[in-house]
Amino acid sequence: MTRLIETINSPADLRKLKLTELPILAKEVREEIISTVSKTGGHLSSSLGAVELAIAIHYSFDTPRDLLLWDVGHQAYAHKILTGRLKSFSTLRQLGGLSGFPNKDESPEYDIFTCGHSSTSISTALGLVLANDLNKEKRKTVAVIGDAALAGGMAFEALNHAGHMKKNMIVILNDNELSISRNVGALSRYLNRIITNPAYNKIRNDVERVLMRIPRFGFRAYRAARKLEEGLKNLLIPGMLFEEMGFRYFGPIDGHNIAQLVAVFKNLINLDEPILIHVITRKGRGYKFTEANPSEFHSTGPFDIKTGEPIKKSARETFTDAFGEKIAELAERNPKIVGITAAMIDGTGFNKFAHIFPERFFDVGISEEHAIGLSAGLARGGFRPVVAIYSTFLQRSYDQIIHDVCLQNLPVVFCLDRAGLVGEDGPTHHGIFDMAYLRHIPNLIVMAPSSPEELRAMLDYALAQGRPLAIRYPRGSAPLFTNEASLIYAKHAKKAEPIQTGKSETIKEGKDLAIIAIGSMVSTAVEISSLLMKEAIRAAVINARFVTPLDGSLLEEICRAHKRIVTIEEGILEGGFGSAVLEFLERENIKGIRVKRIGLPDRFIEHGKREELFQKYNLTPAAICDVIIREVMEG
Amino acid sequence: MTRLIETINSPADLRKLKLTELPILAKEVREEIISTVSKTGGHLSSSLGAVELAIAIHYSFDTPRDLLLWDVGHQAYAHKILTGRLKSFSTLRQLGGLSGFPNKDESPEYDIFTCGHSSTSISTALGLVLANDLNKEKRKTVAVIGDAALAGGMAFEALNHAGHMKKNMIVILNDNELSISRNVGALSRYLNRIITNPAYNKIRNDVERVLMRIPRFGFRAYRAARKLEEGLKNLLIPGMLFEEMGFRYFGPIDGHNIAQLVAVFKNLINLDEPILIHVITRKGRGYKFTEANPSEFHSTGPFDIKTGEPIKKSARETFTDAFGEKIAELAERNPKIVGITAAMIDGTGFNKFAHIFPERFFDVGISEEHAIGLSAGLARGGFRPVVAIYSTFLQRSYDQIIHDVCLQNLPVVFCLDRAGLVGEDGPTHHGIFDMAYLRHIPNLIVMAPSSPEELRAMLDYALAQGRPLAIRYPRGSAPLFTNEASLIYAKHAKKAEPIQTGKSETIKEGKDLAIIAIGSMVSTAVEISSLLMKEAIRAAVINARFVTPLDGSLLEEICRAHKRIVTIEEGILEGGFGSAVLEFLERENIKGIRVKRIGLPDRFIEHGKREELFQKYNLTPAAICDVIIREVMEG
Repeated sequence: MTRLIETINSPADLRKLKLTELPILAKEVREEIISTVSKTGGHLSSSLGAVELAIAIHYSFDTPRDLLLWDVGHQAYAHKILTGRLKSFSTLRQLGGLSGFPNKDESPEYDIFTCGHSSTSISTALGLVLANDLNKEKRKTVAVIGDAALAGGMAFEALNHAGHMKKNMIVILNDNELSISRNVGALSRYLNRIITNPAYNKIRNDVERVLMRIPRFGFRAYRAARKLEEGLKNLLIPGMLFEEMGFRYFGPIDGHNIAQLVAVFKNLINLDEPILIHVITRKGRGYKFTEANPSEFHSTGPFDIKTGEPIKKSARETFTDAFGEKIAELAERNPKIVGITAAMIDGTGFNKFAHIFPERFFDVGISEEHAIGLSAGLARGGFRPVVAIYSTFLQRSYDQIIHDVCLQNLPVVFCLDRAGLVGEDGPTHHGIFDMAYLRHIPNLIVMAPSSPEELRAMLDYALAQGRPLAIRYPRGSAPLFTNEASLIYAKHAKKAEPIQTGKSETIKEGKDLAIIAIGSMVSTAVEISSLLMKEAIRAAVINARFVTPLDGSLLEEICRAHKRIVTIEEGILEGGFGSAVLEFLERENIKGIRVKRIGLPDRFIEHGKREELFQKYNLTPAAICDVIIREVMEG
Repeated sequence: MTRLIETINSPADLRKLKLTELPILAKEVREEIISTVSKTGGHLSSSLGAVELAIAIHYSFDTPRDLLLWDVGHQAYAHKILTGRLKSFSTLRQLGGLSGFPNKDESPEYDIFTCGHSSTSISTALGLVLANDLNKEKRKTVAVIGDAALAGGMAFEALNHAGHMKKNMIVILNDNELSISRNVGALSRYLNRIITNPAYNKIRNDVERVLMRIPRFGFRAYRAARKLEEGLKNLLIPGMLFEEMGFRYFGPIDGHNIAQLVAVFKNLINLDEPILIHVITRKGRGYKFTEANPSEFHSTGPFDIKTGEPIKKSARETFTDAFGEKIAELAERNPKIVGITAAMIDGTGFNKFAHIFPERFFDVGISEEHAIGLSAGLARGGFRPVVAIYSTFLQRSYDQIIHDVCLQNLPVVFCLDRAGLVGEDGPTHHGIFDMAYLRHIPNLIVMAPSSPEELRAMLDYALAQGRPLAIRYPRGSAPLFTNEASLIYAKHAKKAEPIQTGKSETIKEGKDLAIIAIGSMVSTAVEISSLLMKEAIRAAVINARFVTPLDGSLLEEICRAHKRIVTIEEGILEGGFGSAVLEFLERENIKGIRVKRIGLPDRFIEHGKREELFQKYNLTPAAICDVIIREVMEG
């Protein structure tokens, strides 16, 4: 028998189904998601939680004429399947395949914005609403936002403006049971209270009962009661907070009951004001392993569909592991160390610290701006804050890093995980701008370790300094070397020098050119030097360690010894590490040196495996070796 | 008779006064502020509105042991006077004198953070609270925040976290009558409702009356009524929204009644939970001209104290004027142009546009993140958003520029006023990072005009493009030239070429070196060339126009003709415009060129007049000319 899912090439097809068929479709969509993600990896729990929601929305609204935005976008797999992408769904997160997030290039009609960062949907939706309004076009605009994302400052700014503008827009608050129990923030508690505490409903009932008695007792009481009723109508409904913000609140509604969702959506479709519909869903719904461990499957690699067990890859230590171990160890010794993150306890490796020192650990939720302000306050109060946030999300804190930390010259240590190419999560998640956006901030030291081991040493160093400091490191494991390269590296590793401000380390001497690599590209540089040796080219390999301040005396020495410098970085070239080297040569008026900067080009980088992207963007040892031979040695 | 104000060298002295003396002190403080600001210029209205508040806080709390933070900080003049800075107050905003904002270097005890950006105080205060708590130190922490600043996303993130942490902190909401009437946002409306609409109190009274009748009618009704009462106690108080966020709300309180303020502060001092005290003040209070026109005096230049009339300076057209005129004119012709700002209608020159096209203009309040998201939505909906935000405040939108605009390649035009050295507002307000933080963003064109006239041409150009574009320009007027330089410039101006993507313009030919200047520094470059002529050095002068993309063909031509290039920019050198030139030479493998980059050093720049700062940081024509002769020509 043909599955229903195969008859759906667009939401128009979906809308031909009977309401009673929708739960069957939901089951098929869920199976499709589980089966694909078990092979590709991906954001499983959130997408499983939003299957019924996606079906009910596309069934009730006239998409794509009506506009639909998924905040963050990691819950949009069902949406993808329902909007003509079933056949390509197996290519999810693969190079050249479907993106794991809404992507405007993949589906301009249905994915209105390429997204991946949190808390933007109400803001962009309001822009679309105002545009429709100015165009006198009648269409609905729906933003689906999770409870965690709603706590982000940008979402609040947009809510505040939307409630004021009083235009029709529909915000669907996708409230995960999981995030309620684990989330921080007064807003979460508030939502929790609405759902779990029957007091609100009891009060409402009590009031009604009282009101029913009053009219018997004279006109004055009756009038008072009427006023009271009017007041209470506004005051006693559970979504008071949203009503005060100018939204009409409806809910809470069971987000897995399609019929109820459709009924509510269709009922509200003609209201012409800001509406917030509070929907309760369960992260990981419909698959026993995700239901049991939704946060483990939030962003998962491939797994065995029968056992839920991950298909294990390398057992090599990751940078994240090293951070997690080391920071807990440092905190043991130094009671002034406090940890801060923004809804990334597991992803940053902060769980051990959080577990051992709960009173010194602060997860502020999706609030990157506040995370930095809070750290500044803690530092000013005598503590040593270590803030771990992914490189791409720390972009949200650019102003706070300048204004609240570096202008004050406070000793906050920023740890930027997922710096460089992050892989399958794609353009919104690559951390390719950090060296360019941090390097020009006064008072800030910026470093990058070449291995998890060196990250440990850098954390030791960082916490011994009394000033702002950032360490950026990639997703993934310690470098793997080929045989020849590992010999070079091993020879050096025995005598690795302690970290000193603005000092690089020379891994290998060589008189034909100097390769200066930063962070994740140091191991690549070692490989390159071993490839070059085969061509009888003797390359010195320098581990820069510092993006700023640069190692001036070594650079001067290099310039005396070599006329050729190659810089390698896993980041965008404009304003990056290599530019710092160029600036140094200009400042010191050192002429006649051939410098070649190697890094990422001036464009957004698509999704794909890290290795595939390195290949595509010519950042493999072989590709760089070619460039050196062709462009640098022949100069 | 000695004025009271002269007896106050610290808050401890203040606390020796009798409560009845405080209004007299307030009068003296106010006179001092008016008198000084009439000479120095400054943030008059906000500071006049917070005189009683500053006195009451320092009188009630044990400062500096108790910690006090002023959000934004432009209302802190009374605070400065009360904390030992009366004698130096006349140096306000002068180079080497008192800062116009709290400044940690000026008073580490009382100005806990150097500040100037909005919505940070709750966040940093919470950090201080947590630090005190971990240190088991008993001290109060007080953050004073305006109603406009409270609408900023960072403030909400912090409120959400603080309400959850349940630690004792005191947020004083300084609610200006002015900003209520003019502010956007549902939050403002909500605050307005609390104050102006007696319905809340009426409902409360009605309920009480009803409740008083009920007990007569049996136990069940009584019990219901008790429950009702309990519910209502929480639900009917005016600050419900804050209560829902985990704060105890008190207010509204008259912010000019010192006795009442002191009574409230002293009463609440022993509560051990998050407290929000809602205080109503009037911007510009106590001086008839500021009371009549508080927003005109928000940030004022020197004025005649008797008439309130500004002491007029130059009548030359400013960049802001040109923007304001031109954008209104363009909007007349193109109905798709929409205007967006974040609480800077007057400052950006957007008032004319806002007045003529109110339905196409959106002031989102202090919500820089949302401003960009909203613009992205409008652009996606087919409009041509022009966003005008000061360079330093646009730092708040760095992530949104990347994620919501440039990744989507949407045609949003960013207009960055106050780029470069802003002058008296100092380190938090200089717009010196923008070229470095924008230049590396893919898809984004970055430009800078050399004159208001050229800004007009750039706006024409910008709105004819279909992609993201930023234009940065300084505070102030068209360049003034010396006689010789004006001849050079006039000769060129007749044949000024239209703006073309990535094309610079040659203002003057010259065969000894090429000076490539961007934006505000082009007129300086013309001056330099006339100074160099006297030394028989013939300098070509190039107006770069584009920070990115650079004019590659001209650069190649220059490199063939000259061996010397000087770049000049009003911005930080690290990652800035000059670095882009270095990167170009590296990419094209052009060797042997002496490049000298001139711009601002790697540090935060203090306050002072723009001209004084140019002098201090060697950016005057004479200083640069010296450098060229000394360092470049002798190379």
